[in-house]
Amino acid sequence: MTKLLRSWVESANTAETQFPLNNLPYGVFSTADSDPRCGVAIGDYILDVQALEAKGLIAFGGAFKASSWNTFMALGKADWAKLRQRLMEILAEGSTDREQAEPLLTAQEDASLHMPITVSEYTDFYAGRHHATNVGTMFRGAENALPPNWLHIPIGYNGRASSVVVSGTDVRRPWGQLKGPNDDAPRFAPSARFDIELEMGAIVGTASDGPITVQEADENIFGYVLLNDWSARDIQAWEYQPLGPFQAKATATSISPWIVTAAALAPFRCDTPAREVELLDHLKDAGPMLYDIDLSVTLTPEGKAADTIARTNYNEMYYSAAQQLAHHTTSGCAMRVGDLLGSGTISGPKKQNRGSLLELSWGGKQPLELETGETRSFIEDGDTLTLTAAAHGEGFTIGFGDCTGKILPALENPYKR
Amino acid sequence: MTKLLRSWVESANTAETQFPLNNLPYGVFSTADSDPRCGVAIGDYILDVQALEAKGLIAFGGAFKASSWNTFMALGKADWAKLRQRLMEILAEGSTDREQAEPLLTAQEDASLHMPITVSEYTDFYAGRHHATNVGTMFRGAENALPPNWLHIPIGYNGRASSVVVSGTDVRRPWGQLKGPNDDAPRFAPSARFDIELEMGAIVGTASDGPITVQEADENIFGYVLLNDWSARDIQAWEYQPLGPFQAKATATSISPWIVTAAALAPFRCDTPAREVELLDHLKDAGPMLYDIDLSVTLTPEGKAADTIARTNYNEMYYSAAQQLAHHTTSGCAMRVGDLLGSGTISGPKKQNRGSLLELSWGGKQPLELETGETRSFIEDGDTLTLTAAAHGEGFTIGFGDCTGKILPALENPYKR
Repeated sequence: MTKLLRSWVESANTAETQFPLNNLPYGVFSTADSDPRCGVAIGDYILDVQALEAKGLIAFGGAFKASSWNTFMALGKADWAKLRQRLMEILAEGSTDREQAEPLLTAQEDASLHMPITVSEYTDFYAGRHHATNVGTMFRGAENALPPNWLHIPIGYNGRASSVVVSGTDVRRPWGQLKGPNDDAPRFAPSARFDIELEMGAIVGTASDGPITVQEADENIFGYVLLNDWSARDIQAWEYQPLGPFQAKATATSISPWIVTAAALAPFRCDTPAREVELLDHLKDAGPMLYDIDLSVTLTPEGKAADTIARTNYNEMYYSAAQQLAHHTTSGCAMRVGDLLGSGTISGPKKQNRGSLLELSWGGKQPLELETGETRSFIEDGDTLTLTAAAHGEGFTIGFGDCTGKILPALENPYKR
Repeated sequence: MTKLLRSWVESANTAETQFPLNNLPYGVFSTADSDPRCGVAIGDYILDVQALEAKGLIAFGGAFKASSWNTFMALGKADWAKLRQRLMEILAEGSTDREQAEPLLTAQEDASLHMPITVSEYTDFYAGRHHATNVGTMFRGAENALPPNWLHIPIGYNGRASSVVVSGTDVRRPWGQLKGPNDDAPRFAPSARFDIELEMGAIVGTASDGPITVQEADENIFGYVLLNDWSARDIQAWEYQPLGPFQAKATATSISPWIVTAAALAPFRCDTPAREVELLDHLKDAGPMLYDIDLSVTLTPEGKAADTIARTNYNEMYYSAAQQLAHHTTSGCAMRVGDLLGSGTISGPKKQNRGSLLELSWGGKQPLELETGETRSFIEDGDTLTLTAAAHGEGFTIGFGDCTGKILPALENPYKR
């Protein structure tokens, strides 16, 4: 496994930082003095990529005049590699570019982070076997936990791109139509079973216009983010038959502020789990396309200490993002630069590995006990939920920045804003 | 009911034209000499709206430099009314603008039509009761035809915006994973049950950022198009549980080239059908928000005559587009300018009113007999399917232009393009 690469930015040279020279994740930031612009995280700082191009230290045809990474992604894979190579040079210990680059650093604590991309379309999958088995067992019994198609295709549905927000954005508890087991008729009310889904998101960086192979799909993925697919379980239960989740998933979807590139994650590639049934040729694994990334969820009640409620790993997925993207194109579906693919909830085999409160509290039947002594079946107002991710190299860590959101109480009347 | 309004464009003054002065639908066209630009249909001609603004006959801040209607839509409702009013003046019989405007006409036969809008996101509903009952009866039996939620919310799912194409675009029969009733295992094959869905599409012209009322939703709809939601029934049957249709609906969605504005359709407003159960307050009808628009489907086998296989009316819907849009926002889901909402398949009470081959051939069990003597269970290669729409006034007709598509055979190997 690769070792820590040293930078002249000293805070990047520790085993603890999320942003060593090995990482170089892409985001969009602003300061009190500057509008949102593309930047790359290094140690405790952000290097202003827009200014790098304006100064002539990099040259990508003005792609960084834009305040999102979409324009750069559209330039293609050769330029993706070229930028990473050049940033490595500029930021490496002993770089001759240091004098020109150092004034372009902003301390992360002085920056606000924005959506790193404009999301073209958002698709959410259901491709973690432990999660699908847990949810299926709760809803249909252990015998029928996995639907018949589950081991043959990565089940997915189209989500709502307009729901995607950057980490740190507060999330307002939604209203919706719902009908509980004890209700005679449906009613319009705030969701009482509001939940998280711990996911990774893959960002499509290369457009395609017909079916693509798993190998091509892997190459078309620009990078990965942490993703929290906020879910209103009570709205979902009432609405999802027969055409799938709709308003239950449309309130918000939070992503980490930093896109970790596929290139940075290369040392952490790993295989999908053993297959129970062979996949059809067009979906077969074409190499190690999952990643070994430790994941955790913390819940912080308002004014209290954070409590880690789940730990799992991205390598628990049954399907890789490349397989999901390949499946997504089978019908000829055109994919666009900026499409975002949620992995599906990532749970592991044990209770403490579950990536949603629905699973952690077993549908509310086994409320989770927090260290504060409080219990949780679902999210309560004022709770802050935070996802973290770390790929561990030899003496270094690759992080995504937290993916966090605080739940605000539902409006008293959602039509009077 | 309003009478025919007369124009100095003589071909607009007949009872048969789809484009009298009463209509003024918006599209995007190009000619051998000009790039795609916004235009308005009048009789047999298209008036170049980009040139109108360049010449100073209208003034909307340069909105028509864009080659889609999104920029103009974003200006807001007051400008929507202002443009329509001004186009009425310019094109009315006796207009003093005739001399300046007449050189800006292009014969429709010399023009190519393009996507009138950039689709932000696409949502498809399932809100026609006859269709839902027919499909439910086939799949779940007559006793359980309508899901329990169906009479309480307009069931919808997010579709794929990248699939939306303008009328006239050929549609390639898709491949997909499917598993027939006689198959032991799923296989990857061309869809053998490829189908149409006759729908209307509503175009959101005003963005919103939280729940909106049915009245507000109605006001936010810029206009309507004809919409064909091409559907691979065999792919859908295998994939759609538990999270809804995905690749079955992602090959293509055709829309008419002309957007008929809500203003032009105002004389044809009508009520939704009587409610079997009362809707919750936030979804209640707030006035007549459906439209009396005759619809038809023709099937034209390659090299043969067109055969009308279905006739129905938009007034058969159980929910209006305004109710669908209001429901779409209940969770706080942000809506954007250019969002497209498919009504759901519009079938009527009788066999000849059915808006899909699935219903017309009752799942293939009662193949449809064409006038040529051929039969159809689903679409065959080379077939052209055409949707038409007409709202009938006193001595005039409001049309949308055909919504048509020809089915090309599946590729031999979809990975070798």
